[in-house]
Amino acid sequence: MRKEGHHYGLHRVVEPAGVLPQPAWKLDATPEIWENELLIDVERLNIDSASFQQLKTEAEGDPERIKRRIVEIVKERGKMHNPVTGSGGMLIGTVAEVGSAFPDHTLAPGAKIASLVSLTLTPLWLEDVRELSLETGQLKVTGKAVLFASAPYAVLPSDMPEPVALAALDVCGAPAQTARLVQPTDTVVIMGAGGKSGLLSLYQAWKKAGQQGCVIALEANPEACRRIEAMGLAHHVVCLDATDPLQVLETVSTLTRGRLADVTINCVNVPRSELPAILATQEGGVVVFFSMAVQFTTAALGAEGVGKDVQMMIGNGYVPGHAALALESLRECPALYDWFCQRFSSQIG
Amino acid sequence: MRKEGHHYGLHRVVEPAGVLPQPAWKLDATPEIWENELLIDVERLNIDSASFQQLKTEAEGDPERIKRRIVEIVKERGKMHNPVTGSGGMLIGTVAEVGSAFPDHTLAPGAKIASLVSLTLTPLWLEDVRELSLETGQLKVTGKAVLFASAPYAVLPSDMPEPVALAALDVCGAPAQTARLVQPTDTVVIMGAGGKSGLLSLYQAWKKAGQQGCVIALEANPEACRRIEAMGLAHHVVCLDATDPLQVLETVSTLTRGRLADVTINCVNVPRSELPAILATQEGGVVVFFSMAVQFTTAALGAEGVGKDVQMMIGNGYVPGHAALALESLRECPALYDWFCQRFSSQIG
Repeated sequence: MRKEGHHYGLHRVVEPAGVLPQPAWKLDATPEIWENELLIDVERLNIDSASFQQLKTEAEGDPERIKRRIVEIVKERGKMHNPVTGSGGMLIGTVAEVGSAFPDHTLAPGAKIASLVSLTLTPLWLEDVRELSLETGQLKVTGKAVLFASAPYAVLPSDMPEPVALAALDVCGAPAQTARLVQPTDTVVIMGAGGKSGLLSLYQAWKKAGQQGCVIALEANPEACRRIEAMGLAHHVVCLDATDPLQVLETVSTLTRGRLADVTINCVNVPRSELPAILATQEGGVVVFFSMAVQFTTAALGAEGVGKDVQMMIGNGYVPGHAALALESLRECPALYDWFCQRFSSQIG
Repeated sequence: MRKEGHHYGLHRVVEPAGVLPQPAWKLDATPEIWENELLIDVERLNIDSASFQQLKTEAEGDPERIKRRIVEIVKERGKMHNPVTGSGGMLIGTVAEVGSAFPDHTLAPGAKIASLVSLTLTPLWLEDVRELSLETGQLKVTGKAVLFASAPYAVLPSDMPEPVALAALDVCGAPAQTARLVQPTDTVVIMGAGGKSGLLSLYQAWKKAGQQGCVIALEANPEACRRIEAMGLAHHVVCLDATDPLQVLETVSTLTRGRLADVTINCVNVPRSELPAILATQEGGVVVFFSMAVQFTTAALGAEGVGKDVQMMIGNGYVPGHAALALESLRECPALYDWFCQRFSSQIG
């Protein structure tokens, strides 16, 4: 085993020199660990929604072409870091080897874990890509991955199917930050409410805002809208295109009698949803952007352009306790759990 | 005069349809106003720092090539919206015509104003580009611009040179947000402290944190570091490359005895300063990104990647009272005012 590597994984950066693993173009994914690393036998990848959307479009929906492109990216970059969207996803696997200086000494080989750190900074070496689900963006693979000493991860729960836990853990920063921000009686708008981060955030918003609050779910897919209504997790569910600024503004304005949202959670996985989110939010309110399709300048200049004093936050994928909160949400809300099971556990075996 | 246009300027969007003027590719910059618009005889453009940096590099520092590129962009897009950086800047000029339904009825033709809205959403029609300053990114031009009913602007003060006021107003969101966030006794790190947004933010941080606080100025240019020291606006001034994550972390960690910053204000105008800003900030602290060179995904995934629970804010160019606060800072602090005068008023006449 090689001597102790850098806490943040700098020793694995191939190019450009001096940057951290996330912004790096290429990592050294050699599947032999340094003293403070963890080696994982990778079983399943969960490609981030913005990235998978892009890969699907590029490959014209052909699963074999998507697989080939993923293998190509991982080979070229030493990590599954989509060069177009800049985003990654996460993985599950079995602990193969624990470095002697890895911070968590309770972890043992054989434990089933999920990485809670983006694939964009996880050294990954793929042997084989087997099944791919076009519906979920999950793949069954054989390969090795490395976790650095600084990387958060979660031991998988035994009371739910793995793909379900993986899907929830992939987006667990969003519901955790929603739970932290939303206050009782708040008006909350969830954009892209029908996806997994949208639904988990919706549940936390519903729970925190309470019956005196007002939770508005915006979602483009009519079928997803019907499901949200059936779950009973929102005061209003509206089927609309969240990239249309005027439609979003008019809808939220009408439903709130012109007050607009205290908190807007943006989980839309396509470009151009920045301004609609800003317009839906009241002066002094907060917008949290969780979508990897968000452009920094579009948000910054957009708010200035409409003269709107809103706090705009970059959704942080790490919040203490986020993994436990996401899994607990599934246990607390049977309708949510059923949706995750239907959506994720049947797709790939 | 044409009938009342849209409050947010949608009636000027040429393509793509349905988006707001900021994200639009092209605006209709016809210099004839609608009822609720304002027409300006443009005198001076102030190109945003990230954009000007990019234009300078692309044109290999040749002022004539930069001018030609600016004329080209404005002709193609109907606005000075740099297609590479996505950023703009602002302008000053004289009110030429006030639409009958423009919200501010006190404004009269002949008043000298600065737009407080990005050039990326301001319809602009250039007749001539005259002088260009490579030092400041300001240009003297002849042309017309249009302000929408929703656009903030400021009447120029009579007690300071126009280029000085323009330079301060261009970045006035940063010091205003700094003033709002920094609390007495806070530890504050200002990255890119030697530029205009850096210096104005530094002044507000220094004022708000007080002597019990700790203000750390990071700046790459040694000459700028000496100037900051002479101004006496920081407890520590360190000359370093703010894109080097380890150097930034070690420096801030040493100066704060491992506590790190409560608030980090990032005003660095080159890429890859996201992670250094995150690393300089303590758990639970706040990072505000004001640079147009920031990548959303790099920040979001970077914080997750190092498992750091920091609030990351997209610097909003609009904060109520921001223009007055920036100009007042120059009046309050003679050293700051002198720097702005030396740097901006002598460059172009």
